[in-house]
Amino acid sequence: MANFELTREFLEDLKNTIDSKNEKLAAEKVADLHAADIAEIYDELDIDEARFLHLLLDDEKGADVLVELEEDVRESFLKNLPAETIARQFIEQMDSDDAADIISELPQDVKDEVLSKINDVEQAGDIVDLLNYPEDTAGGLMAKELVAVKMNWNILTSIREIRKQAEEVDDIYNVYVVDDDNILKGIISIKKLLLIPTSESISTIYDPDIISVKVDTPDEEVANIMDKYDLVSIPVVDSIGRLVGRITIDDVVDVIREEAEKDYQMASGISGDVEPSDNVWVLTRARIPWLLIGLFGGILSALVMGQYEGDIMKYAGLALFVPLINAMAGNVGVQSSAIVVQGLANNSLGLETLSKKLFKELSVGFTNGIICSTIIFAYNFFMSDSYSLTITVSIALFSVILFASVFGTFIPLALNRFKIDPALATGPFITTINDITGLFIYLFIGRIMFTII
Amino acid sequence: MANFELTREFLEDLKNTIDSKNEKLAAEKVADLHAADIAEIYDELDIDEARFLHLLLDDEKGADVLVELEEDVRESFLKNLPAETIARQFIEQMDSDDAADIISELPQDVKDEVLSKINDVEQAGDIVDLLNYPEDTAGGLMAKELVAVKMNWNILTSIREIRKQAEEVDDIYNVYVVDDDNILKGIISIKKLLLIPTSESISTIYDPDIISVKVDTPDEEVANIMDKYDLVSIPVVDSIGRLVGRITIDDVVDVIREEAEKDYQMASGISGDVEPSDNVWVLTRARIPWLLIGLFGGILSALVMGQYEGDIMKYAGLALFVPLINAMAGNVGVQSSAIVVQGLANNSLGLETLSKKLFKELSVGFTNGIICSTIIFAYNFFMSDSYSLTITVSIALFSVILFASVFGTFIPLALNRFKIDPALATGPFITTINDITGLFIYLFIGRIMFTII
Repeated sequence: MANFELTREFLEDLKNTIDSKNEKLAAEKVADLHAADIAEIYDELDIDEARFLHLLLDDEKGADVLVELEEDVRESFLKNLPAETIARQFIEQMDSDDAADIISELPQDVKDEVLSKINDVEQAGDIVDLLNYPEDTAGGLMAKELVAVKMNWNILTSIREIRKQAEEVDDIYNVYVVDDDNILKGIISIKKLLLIPTSESISTIYDPDIISVKVDTPDEEVANIMDKYDLVSIPVVDSIGRLVGRITIDDVVDVIREEAEKDYQMASGISGDVEPSDNVWVLTRARIPWLLIGLFGGILSALVMGQYEGDIMKYAGLALFVPLINAMAGNVGVQSSAIVVQGLANNSLGLETLSKKLFKELSVGFTNGIICSTIIFAYNFFMSDSYSLTITVSIALFSVILFASVFGTFIPLALNRFKIDPALATGPFITTINDITGLFIYLFIGRIMFTII
Repeated sequence: MANFELTREFLEDLKNTIDSKNEKLAAEKVADLHAADIAEIYDELDIDEARFLHLLLDDEKGADVLVELEEDVRESFLKNLPAETIARQFIEQMDSDDAADIISELPQDVKDEVLSKINDVEQAGDIVDLLNYPEDTAGGLMAKELVAVKMNWNILTSIREIRKQAEEVDDIYNVYVVDDDNILKGIISIKKLLLIPTSESISTIYDPDIISVKVDTPDEEVANIMDKYDLVSIPVVDSIGRLVGRITIDDVVDVIREEAEKDYQMASGISGDVEPSDNVWVLTRARIPWLLIGLFGGILSALVMGQYEGDIMKYAGLALFVPLINAMAGNVGVQSSAIVVQGLANNSLGLETLSKKLFKELSVGFTNGIICSTIIFAYNFFMSDSYSLTITVSIALFSVILFASVFGTFIPLALNRFKIDPALATGPFITTINDITGLFIYLFIGRIMFTII
């Protein structure tokens, strides 16, 4: 069934069917559904219901569903299943990249047992190879399944070979051309393959201008390359240029989504990959670290203000604008750091030097500072009876905006230089530091102004 | 040249070559580069240098580069060029979706003139059709170029037709099957096409289980569907099911990136689509609206505190914890809203009802509130000599966290129900409202506590 949408009615109905153990009717209800839709249904079922349903699927569909599940759902689904079932019914039906991903999630002892139960030794070998690569590299993303021809083959041999190899590969986007040592030499598009006359030979029709990645290329960089060059698949080579695998765009779309979500969550003060459907404890655990940073920052702020308690007692007006200074320091810092973090993530920083970037940020801060401090000056000029306060708030706001701009730009760039994820510098972290520094600047200027004016 | 990386040295060298008007050498330097790389180079050149380089490219490469340019660079590049040049040299070499995108950016009078100069009437008609669809729908994303066969054709006719159509299409991922009224009936994968014996007929080999979108499906939904089902291309049908176009994954990757960036920028208080390489004025303009909201919120906070100026004068300790309350209200609000906004964006909210969501959020807020207020109670119990203050800060912090959790969850859900972009509710907006409300809660509880204890 195309374009399925999971409704509460459908789910109720399916649950009732499962609870009444009506295998035939339950199987019918999900028979035409795509594996991704069935996986979505498992999210809403309890584990026994999901297993009941799973037994009604054929092996291939069952394996596809397993691949589509959220990691935590899959974990509880596979728990206590015999290694033989996992190997024969699930892993053997999967592409090597999915198989390796799922096996890597298993506990060490189950992992080895499952690998030993795989009938096809070549497949087991491919999976073991893939397990060696770190998850966040091209090697960790790639599948071993691909279609390749030798440079010196003629077209008829090649087409026969392509047909044979194609049976093992889910989707074919390109045919790769290698030499006798399996060194990647070029590419033939499917389109060209459809259009060539059979009298040609591979060496005359292939395109040697090929974009590839190395096994150790970081996944974010793979994503940037595929996005930039609008590629649907990209070949992966080892350190001496031998073709070892292929990455397809669907896996890269997941990388792009996850990266963007991670940065967004980090900026919002949420750690770990959480979803609204996660339980209370997971959600709490993802949020408490940043709240503790905020709490700690708040205590530091109280200590800073404590140093100026005398001034605050004398000029209570001073306290009134603490929230304003705080808010502006936080906002400006987050803005500045977000632009840098995003630029680093999608490689759009351009060729500007660090000093040019800081100077530009300083100019933006200067402009915004002038605008905001003029407005607050005008407001206090008419509304407050203390000139000292009016001048203090304006000058402090201007200084705080300038400081927060430069600081918000500098910190993520510095973290990046030291190979620390710059997204760490966004959200609560930068807000907290800017809050405290801004407060200090404000109260310090206040003390001077109230003394001299 | 594969895997090109733009360096400052390469750029210097190229600029010198261009400035010395050495056409042959300049052409050589970029001859092997991918269009996306040349577009990146234009970003760093001034407009006359870019135009000089552009004249050295062949028409097809030139058109490809134009498609890859950032919108603002393209605008200044095309400005003052004769309509005939734009039509014949650029537009005629492009796929219909790229052509429509670029024409839609032109001023109205230029637009009509360019359209009238296109030699191929069929192409011009396709572009005019595409211009009718809103940019952010499937119609606005799709291209007219695709490969389709009729259900009643035999395989030999089909293959001949596919070869003919393939010449017009950049990449072929699937062949669509339609009936005599052009109603979409099914799909044949390239793999199947490579494997079938020619004795079969289309009606026996096509797959009728096809996922499609309507022309008016929002682009975010197209992205979610293609992501969920791991599709590389998706057919687009009109309201009665006729096949009218095809969307490929590269365009959808751009949608996913842009959506994620937009939400991230909104959460960081930046409006509009800005990049670190934009100029000072663009960057300032994108940031000032949110700063003004923060400034306005700060003034409101000052007014709220003004109401309690007497209490602050009497118990200066009260002022010290204003930054802490502010920071926590802001952090919790941003966390809560971010989870909802992200859930809405990638359709992962699940089937929970609104009241169940709010209850869950309330539980998370309750847990975090207990933890944080216990810590601050312990801190003040040992560090402060005022029991009233110790109790006020703890109770207020707990209340503020609870309020900010629920409020941060509720507002984006409410905006979404009223078809307003829920991402608006994140960042400075929610921070500002939570700041003021939190402050009010804190000072109100403070007044009561200092009165009764």
